Amino acid sequence: MQLRCPQSELERALHQVSRAVARRSTLPVLSNVLLAADEANLRITATNLEIALSVSFPAEVTDPGQLSVRADVFTEFIGSLPKQDVILSGTTGSNDLRVTCGTSKARIPGIPAEDFPSLPRIGDQPPTATVPVEGLREAISQVVFAAATDDSRPVLAGVLLEFRGTELTLAAADGFRLSVRSLALQQPAATDLAIIVPARALGELARVLGDGEETVQLLVTPNRSQLLARSGRLEFLSRLIDGTFPEFRQIIPKQWRTRVTVDRESFLAAARRAKIFAQSNNEVVKLHIAPGDSELDPGSLTVSAQAADAGDTEDILPARVDGPEATIAFNGRYLTDVLSVTKATEIALEMTTPNAAGVFRPVGDESFVHVVMPMVIGAA
Amino acid sequence: MQLRCPQSELERALHQVSRAVARRSTLPVLSNVLLAADEANLRITATNLEIALSVSFPAEVTDPGQLSVRADVFTEFIGSLPKQDVILSGTTGSNDLRVTCGTSKARIPGIPAEDFPSLPRIGDQPPTATVPVEGLREAISQVVFAAATDDSRPVLAGVLLEFRGTELTLAAADGFRLSVRSLALQQPAATDLAIIVPARALGELARVLGDGEETVQLLVTPNRSQLLARSGRLEFLSRLIDGTFPEFRQIIPKQWRTRVTVDRESFLAAARRAKIFAQSNNEVVKLHIAPGDSELDPGSLTVSAQAADAGDTEDILPARVDGPEATIAFNGRYLTDVLSVTKATEIALEMTTPNAAGVFRPVGDESFVHVVMPMVIGAA
Repeated sequence: MQLRCPQSELERALHQVSRAVARRSTLPVLSNVLLAADEANLRITATNLEIALSVSFPAEVTDPGQLSVRADVFTEFIGSLPKQDVILSGTTGSNDLRVTCGTSKARIPGIPAEDFPSLPRIGDQPPTATVPVEGLREAISQVVFAAATDDSRPVLAGVLLEFRGTELTLAAADGFRLSVRSLALQQPAATDLAIIVPARALGELARVLGDGEETVQLLVTPNRSQLLARSGRLEFLSRLIDGTFPEFRQIIPKQWRTRVTVDRESFLAAARRAKIFAQSNNEVVKLHIAPGDSELDPGSLTVSAQAADAGDTEDILPARVDGPEATIAFNGRYLTDVLSVTKATEIALEMTTPNAAGVFRPVGDESFVHVVMPMVIGAA
Repeated sequence: MQLRCPQSELERALHQVSRAVARRSTLPVLSNVLLAADEANLRITATNLEIALSVSFPAEVTDPGQLSVRADVFTEFIGSLPKQDVILSGTTGSNDLRVTCGTSKARIPGIPAEDFPSLPRIGDQPPTATVPVEGLREAISQVVFAAATDDSRPVLAGVLLEFRGTELTLAAADGFRLSVRSLALQQPAATDLAIIVPARALGELARVLGDGEETVQLLVTPNRSQLLARSGRLEFLSRLIDGTFPEFRQIIPKQWRTRVTVDRESFLAAARRAKIFAQSNNEVVKLHIAPGDSELDPGSLTVSAQAADAGDTEDILPARVDGPEATIAFNGRYLTDVLSVTKATEIALEMTTPNAAGVFRPVGDESFVHVVMPMVIGAA
């Protein structure tokens, strides 16, 4: 292998794949990146067997070839070089990679490319769906936090992706809350299907997507064991979770007794303040919804929290209230989570009783709905 | 106590004193901030008994008084408030503090002000010296990293401040390296004296200094047990370390056999690169100094490192060499430390043998000198 490429391109590509490098793996090759040079491009790939990330960019290749080297030392070294051309070359008779740039040179021991896991690629087959990058990234951010962080029920540690005609629906639930977001597709999906992607993997996809690209192609492998994504020079691969996702549409309450509509940013700010005090009281943040007396005084939402050692706080926000007075309590983090992931000016909370799930809906945006179980705080 | 002040002033003051709040102290009052309102000002003070920080700013005080409240909850809550006026009020019959701002209110339990440690202040007595803020901050940054991080020899965990006529000299040494920086005073010090300030405390002083002020007044208490500093609205207090600092001037080698002068930023970049490889080889970074053959080729400095698992690297920098060829090795971190703390374009390294201390001097700046013990790397 012998090639020349700009330091900045190489540094950027290594940064993009870095999240897929295995930390402390028992398999040394997983702590490496694979460098694969064909006639005109260098492709850099990393995988931790959970996900794989791969970036390809043009390079002046004089001798095509492959080699894998330690990701940490190689990435740090490339990052420390001046913004000039870098020459990468293999050594005959050894697996060493030689790097030259400006006044610097280095030798980094490698592992033969054959030992690196071989990974499926999107070839010529048509993608399952083509999705706008910005829309997908926002949709992922709106559901991924609601997935379970432990593996006691594996399907809940994943995000459901349901392709149905011209709609892609994402859903995640951890047993305490459910987040659902739908996304319109410009072209109908190639096949209607539903898959469960590990939440952490989907979070990584959202993180690396973008970079000036407008769309991302998603492809579910024919045996439904892997999801591939391609956007510009970036390729992403994740394993899928086997199992059946809960019937999430049945979890969303159909009716409400009291609905409060309030400025989202004020509600978020009040919830953040309440969280400071709720920390030492099981995160309990209380909401009191009071209808107004007249047309001029539509009503209020009081956000409060208290703890013996920290004290107590209360925010009274003007709000539009439909239905009777009501009280409900939520985990403060769940509140700030849902209030941060939408950009809507106003948000509505619908509820029936203090013991039944509350439903959050951004006003004027039907594509997102979030259901949270309340905390039961007794007679107080 | 009852007063009104802008949220932004209060937030800034709490941020400034926050580094002096004790974490996990057995004395609860040290996790608090003291609020003291006189006729026209609110003073906020925090201390962990190692240092104290205090900030005073104008407030509309309707009822002067004092109270101490939990720093964490109070600081977080004030930080979460909108940029409006905040009303702080004590409660008769309890130690609670009540806070009101916009739609928010809170009650935070307090501790009587009498339980807060009483701290000396700079009163009318003349300061020991008045020092430019920027100069002092730079001087601290140039020596503080060379102090010992453990307390096995207490004086080495401190920085020597030597006031002598119109010169203030700062020195720190950890047994492997010595950093010395002198600073001109506009007015002679009130008394010639030398004190040892805990390095961590001095680092905190450098961090909080600034904020538009040009000078800082330093005052050593008459019993020489504390250092006070005042700059604008900020007051700082540190305990001093008892003991005798090593005769640092005797440690600086007077002679050299080989001197290499090199572009500082190139040297720093090369040292950083070498450090990547040196990590798994005891941080050993090797320097090879080679005189040139002619006037046109003045010489070179080669910076290299190697490790069995990471590989090896080498940077050859053009350099001006006086004296014969030589090799010396240093801990890579010590190299990057000294090369980062001066702004000089060129730096000179003077040495005699591979086993004797090397001396770093920024070219054209006599005020700073740094001595480092080499690593002995054997015949290789």
